[in-house]
Amino acid sequence: MAAVLAANRAFYAAFEAQDLDSMSALWSHDAEVACTHPGWATLHGWAAVSASWFALFQQPSPLQFILTEERARVVGELAWVTVDENLIGQQTGQTVAALNLFRRGGGGWLLWCHHGSAVAPRQARPGTP
Amino acid sequence: MAAVLAANRAFYAAFEAQDLDSMSALWSHDAEVACTHPGWATLHGWAAVSASWFALFQQPSPLQFILTEERARVVGELAWVTVDENLIGQQTGQTVAALNLFRRGGGGWLLWCHHGSAVAPRQARPGTP
Repeated sequence: MAAVLAANRAFYAAFEAQDLDSMSALWSHDAEVACTHPGWATLHGWAAVSASWFALFQQPSPLQFILTEERARVVGELAWVTVDENLIGQQTGQTVAALNLFRRGGGGWLLWCHHGSAVAPRQARPGTP
Repeated sequence: MAAVLAANRAFYAAFEAQDLDSMSALWSHDAEVACTHPGWATLHGWAAVSASWFALFQQPSPLQFILTEERARVVGELAWVTVDENLIGQQTGQTVAALNLFRRGGGGWLLWCHHGSAVAPRQARPGTP
């Protein structure tokens, strides 16, 4: 469980640092990995996923997050984490809800799926209970 | 694999039919299930998740989907499906990218996580590779 949360935090550290080598080391390079950035279609396979990180890391102002509501669960060789990515800096106040799926490999927990989506302001969500 | 895809399609059938009993039977009722509707914050636990389905099913015009890009993977007692939910009817042209996580229980594959997010029109996605 601690190792999963450490892998999850390493993912966001690589994201903030725009460190493509670290990001690459954190992901499985399988053809079936999947990544859905907020507003994007789902990307399948490491080639497409790595290209998206390369593109995102060209942004002149890196994103910074405060992570809240981190919850991890481990079942066998898989684990998943739900977490809120609270953006700070120019995009303060924006929150991205994320679901990250990890699989244990030879070198530790590797990302297999990342799905992030922007949380709309509460008043804009019809039907919210 | 076939059973996972069948469970995934049953989920969308219950969604389209606004059938709360079927939806309830498809989910684990664990306190750690998670559901992120497009634009919503992540809901944790079956009580909150079931309340969201109850609220969504009050809509006078049910949603209808054409599912594309369905891809399932089974690892041990867990499985995940990535799928595009292509809305038809009044919301034709809108696509929701989804990641659904299932766990095998006594009665078959049960949903543990659903994360859906609206795919923005391609021209609105800066940095898209």
